[in-house]
Amino acid sequence: MAIKRRKVSVIGGGFTGATTALMVAQKELGDVVLVDIPDMEGPTKGKALDMLESTPVQGVDSNVVGTSKYEDTAGSDVVVITAGIARKPGMSRDDLVNTNAKIMKSVTKEVVKYSPDCYIIVLTNPADAMTYTVFKESGFPKNRVMGQSGVLDTARFRTFVAQELNLSVEDIQGFVLGGHGDDMVPLIRYSSAGGVPLTKLLPQDRIDAIVERTRKGGGEIVQLLGNGSAYYAPAASLTQMVEAILKDKKRVLPSIAYLEGEYGYEDLYVGVPTILGGDGVEKIIELDLTEEEATELSKSVESVKSVMTALPKD
Amino acid sequence: MAIKRRKVSVIGGGFTGATTALMVAQKELGDVVLVDIPDMEGPTKGKALDMLESTPVQGVDSNVVGTSKYEDTAGSDVVVITAGIARKPGMSRDDLVNTNAKIMKSVTKEVVKYSPDCYIIVLTNPADAMTYTVFKESGFPKNRVMGQSGVLDTARFRTFVAQELNLSVEDIQGFVLGGHGDDMVPLIRYSSAGGVPLTKLLPQDRIDAIVERTRKGGGEIVQLLGNGSAYYAPAASLTQMVEAILKDKKRVLPSIAYLEGEYGYEDLYVGVPTILGGDGVEKIIELDLTEEEATELSKSVESVKSVMTALPKD
Amino acid sequence: MAIKRRKVSVIGGGFTGATTALMVAQKELGDVVLVDIPDMEGPTKGKALDMLESTPVQGVDSNVVGTSKYEDTAGSDVVVITAGIARKPGMSRDDLVNTNAKIMKSVTKEVVKYSPDCYIIVLTNPADAMTYTVFKESGFPKNRVMGQSGVLDTARFRTFVAQELNLSVEDIQGFVLGGHGDDMVPLIRYSSAGGVPLTKLLPQDRIDAIVERTRKGGGEIVQLLGNGSAYYAPAASLTQMVEAILKDKKRVLPSIAYLEGEYGYEDLYVGVPTILGGDGVEKIIELDLTEEEATELSKSVESVKSVMTALPKD
Amino acid sequence: MAIKRRKVSVIGGGFTGATTALMVAQKELGDVVLVDIPDMEGPTKGKALDMLESTPVQGVDSNVVGTSKYEDTAGSDVVVITAGIARKPGMSRDDLVNTNAKIMKSVTKEVVKYSPDCYIIVLTNPADAMTYTVFKESGFPKNRVMGQSGVLDTARFRTFVAQELNLSVEDIQGFVLGGHGDDMVPLIRYSSAGGVPLTKLLPQDRIDAIVERTRKGGGEIVQLLGNGSAYYAPAASLTQMVEAILKDKKRVLPSIAYLEGEYGYEDLYVGVPTILGGDGVEKIIELDLTEEEATELSKSVESVKSVMTALPKD
Repeated sequence: MAIKRRKVSVIGGGFTGATTALMVAQKELGDVVLVDIPDMEGPTKGKALDMLESTPVQGVDSNVVGTSKYEDTAGSDVVVITAGIARKPGMSRDDLVNTNAKIMKSVTKEVVKYSPDCYIIVLTNPADAMTYTVFKESGFPKNRVMGQSGVLDTARFRTFVAQELNLSVEDIQGFVLGGHGDDMVPLIRYSSAGGVPLTKLLPQDRIDAIVERTRKGGGEIVQLLGNGSAYYAPAASLTQMVEAILKDKKRVLPSIAYLEGEYGYEDLYVGVPTILGGDGVEKIIELDLTEEEATELSKSVESVKSVMTALPKD
Repeated sequence: MAIKRRKVSVIGGGFTGATTALMVAQKELGDVVLVDIPDMEGPTKGKALDMLESTPVQGVDSNVVGTSKYEDTAGSDVVVITAGIARKPGMSRDDLVNTNAKIMKSVTKEVVKYSPDCYIIVLTNPADAMTYTVFKESGFPKNRVMGQSGVLDTARFRTFVAQELNLSVEDIQGFVLGGHGDDMVPLIRYSSAGGVPLTKLLPQDRIDAIVERTRKGGGEIVQLLGNGSAYYAPAASLTQMVEAILKDKKRVLPSIAYLEGEYGYEDLYVGVPTILGGDGVEKIIELDLTEEEATELSKSVESVKSVMTALPKD
Repeated sequence: MAIKRRKVSVIGGGFTGATTALMVAQKELGDVVLVDIPDMEGPTKGKALDMLESTPVQGVDSNVVGTSKYEDTAGSDVVVITAGIARKPGMSRDDLVNTNAKIMKSVTKEVVKYSPDCYIIVLTNPADAMTYTVFKESGFPKNRVMGQSGVLDTARFRTFVAQELNLSVEDIQGFVLGGHGDDMVPLIRYSSAGGVPLTKLLPQDRIDAIVERTRKGGGEIVQLLGNGSAYYAPAASLTQMVEAILKDKKRVLPSIAYLEGEYGYEDLYVGVPTILGGDGVEKIIELDLTEEEATELSKSVESVKSVMTALPKD
Repeated sequence: MAIKRRKVSVIGGGFTGATTALMVAQKELGDVVLVDIPDMEGPTKGKALDMLESTPVQGVDSNVVGTSKYEDTAGSDVVVITAGIARKPGMSRDDLVNTNAKIMKSVTKEVVKYSPDCYIIVLTNPADAMTYTVFKESGFPKNRVMGQSGVLDTARFRTFVAQELNLSVEDIQGFVLGGHGDDMVPLIRYSSAGGVPLTKLLPQDRIDAIVERTRKGGGEIVQLLGNGSAYYAPAASLTQMVEAILKDKKRVLPSIAYLEGEYGYEDLYVGVPTILGGDGVEKIIELDLTEEEATELSKSVESVKSVMTALPKD
């Protein structure tokens, strides 16, 4: 009967997972449980404790716990899955898909066992296929399982446009469909600065350059870091999705969502504009696409399907 | 004439430096420049760009730049120094002091050259001696050079008390003097929960245990992480000091400050309660100490002095 | 099953009620329903709509609704009662008590009918007696009915101390017991600046002057305004209590709470230090009082009891 | 040399002025001075003190002062003018213009005397003509004098669209040109929800109804309140403009700005899309208008000019 704090569990205590935990705690969205495998229990507990020790100075009441035990995630409202391996040099794409799919299955079993009513957001790469895997394994309705890629792509796009025009990032709108990175389908006609279509503000070649940079945005960070990949912007993107659900905000955000006929596709997860609220993916927004956009989306979907063929059959 | 954003430079792009940059940006305290050595230019730029790409989603306008060039720090209002090496197994304390003191000197020269009016906050270990080194090298007045250790110690203390009593961290007050870790002098009689002295709320042995855990708080995280040391709570602590200065808040915070007779000591930097505002360390608050506290502080000062003997002479 | 926003109803659409609604909405604590009598339905709807129209600019998703129908409050998590009349020249205290007690009863009936599980915070004057009235009428357990006066008194005290010492308001602690205004029992030995007891920072006559100004704090605003009484600080105080409950913060805050033997009193509501969390008044903190403090509290309690004699019997 | 807080003065201590002062203080944008005429000194001081007493609870360090002396505004960074009378029944429009223009002149003289480098934002009605009056009287460059109307109109429009579509207000974009209320020129083709043009989401008659409601938005509140006019959304709109300047955000916001040929008009103030940053109105964004929009804008400009003929000549 007493009012309880919301609870968010983050599976995977690497940089993205840990930064997501931090940001969720900073916004007082709820208590946070950071989970990693038993071998990583020490570092996971260490990061969580360090975060917790920052809360008095940040002026927030959010408990942050590190663990390797799924019992500790019991009763989560939202679970974010960042677990999985990164593709290593020499590793085939199919090996990556196979390994991460296995991880998804085992993680999902545990998540579902302890939080049968939760909403799940998947980040693990390749995100479309991994979200599909989690969906199938969970047995959850489709609105309760989604993936992240478009919020991040849009964030990068908005950053580059804001820099180009020297404007506030708050006033830049971006819009993407389809997969992450090369498979991203930007809808430039729905992108604007302060409401003004980008096409009125920037010459086509600058827009093209920004789209291209956005597509390669993940790679740009990987190359700069030398070792590892982006985690600040991905974590902020995940946190925005968590907040949209926990505060029932009805945000219009791109999510990796399950299609059942929308845009002409079925039984797959791909990035589309959605309404995110207290019941997860409350709606998929279907837009009329130009022929070019439809072609690009179809390529993106082919790419997703091709990855899905590598999913373990069982 | 136009109103300009404040500017904060963070020297040292490791975990603490980068997390400090993030938190300063999150609070829109100003634009942020993250600086590391040329060898680390890639990762530094990568982290900064990743942070910048998170700003549209976080809804803040803060430019974040990574660089190895001190020119980019020109005109900073506040500079935070986190650069330096960590003590490695087998390294003598004097070697650590020597190496970091040299780093402080070279960093300070550059900082002062490009931001002659800035306020400097030093985190590098051993912080008392390093702050002293920066002070001497900078030629700045004492109020414009300070170090961080007490905000972090207090944050840990408050966290442990809040957990013990199951209370909001916002309502726990802590108070420390002296050095970091083992040299910390807790003033328990000035520590309270919701204004109620801790001594009325907890038995002495629990208070002792919490003090002891606070003293070892850095080591606890090091041991859990296995590799590396705390950075979330240190970064939050630095950010609170930056905010106190940039917003001229007149916060009562423990700083490593330059003593000229206060508490009976001279020409050294040690942790004392201060008023932090738009002119840096605007005042040192002098408290009557009990005999026991005075003895502990004197030990802490001896420890600082002993470290200072290892500073390079020139 | 879907996650729902919290819901806060504010009874009484005058300045304090409306400002409380605004502050709850600004913090995205939940959706807000502002209720007043049918005669005031227009203005109540007008204020609520005006607030709602500010949300896009403030960047928050909180629905704000004005109404005269209690149906609209159905399922509230927290209900704040600010309804009631102010004492007019020539009105006897008993008349005030009588009138407001009747209002409390009728309001409470409606509140309880539509939100049988809510937590109620009472502001209406005289707050101790009115909270008692609401408690009795509601049939709720004592932890779910409380009143506000001490948070406001403490806020004023902290403001005056911060001004006197030119320090951040964030670092000033205050502590009060007993009734509002003249009946306030300040515990100066538990008041501090940055943890340092006020008695070390200010001469006794300055402390006395600040206590006196705090006692008369409501009257000072009334006199300045010429017409009406304070609402910004009262609304902020109510909002802090609402937040403590909705976020289960376990704050240590002074509340008007029901005593069953604590401090030696029974079956009355008076201001005491409490722990406010997800289950309302989760605990009353009992402190040892000095003889002087005990005497002052006893006077305060006598004053409360004397007011209570004017409550309508039935 | 020390870092100083920004300073914002609000002229006119009525509901809108006071609420603006509150919101500026809540965001810690700087210290606030609320100014009204000597006859209103008491209430002005009362409101300011009440606000100040809310700061400890709100956790912000912003000094708020009420005064009737312009000396107290000295050195303001931004000055917001809300002073003036409202049109009373039976008062001719010319009388209103004449009276408020005189108030603008006398206020501007004082503002300029004490803050010769400030940025001025005018709210007083009729805002286009009043901003022009302040501009001429101030002798300031055009970028440092602007008026508010479009942020508010857009806020209302966004609110109504969000309600209609049951979406987050954060995801609705609106766009207006021209004057306030009936003279507003909505650019629906630049209005969107989550980037998707409204015309794809709503039938034309619903859009028309929302535009019409927005045009009458001020009147709707006036009618509901029965006595007085909107102040929450106007204050939030002013605060957003203040923030854009003080944080040099380069926001794309509609401002009442001085035209020198833009959109084909000269030497008048009217609502246009602008970039608001540390140098005030840093740029007017010129858009191609459809014939219909151009006609509407021309009507809006005629209306402004007609009001300007009523300005006192001297």
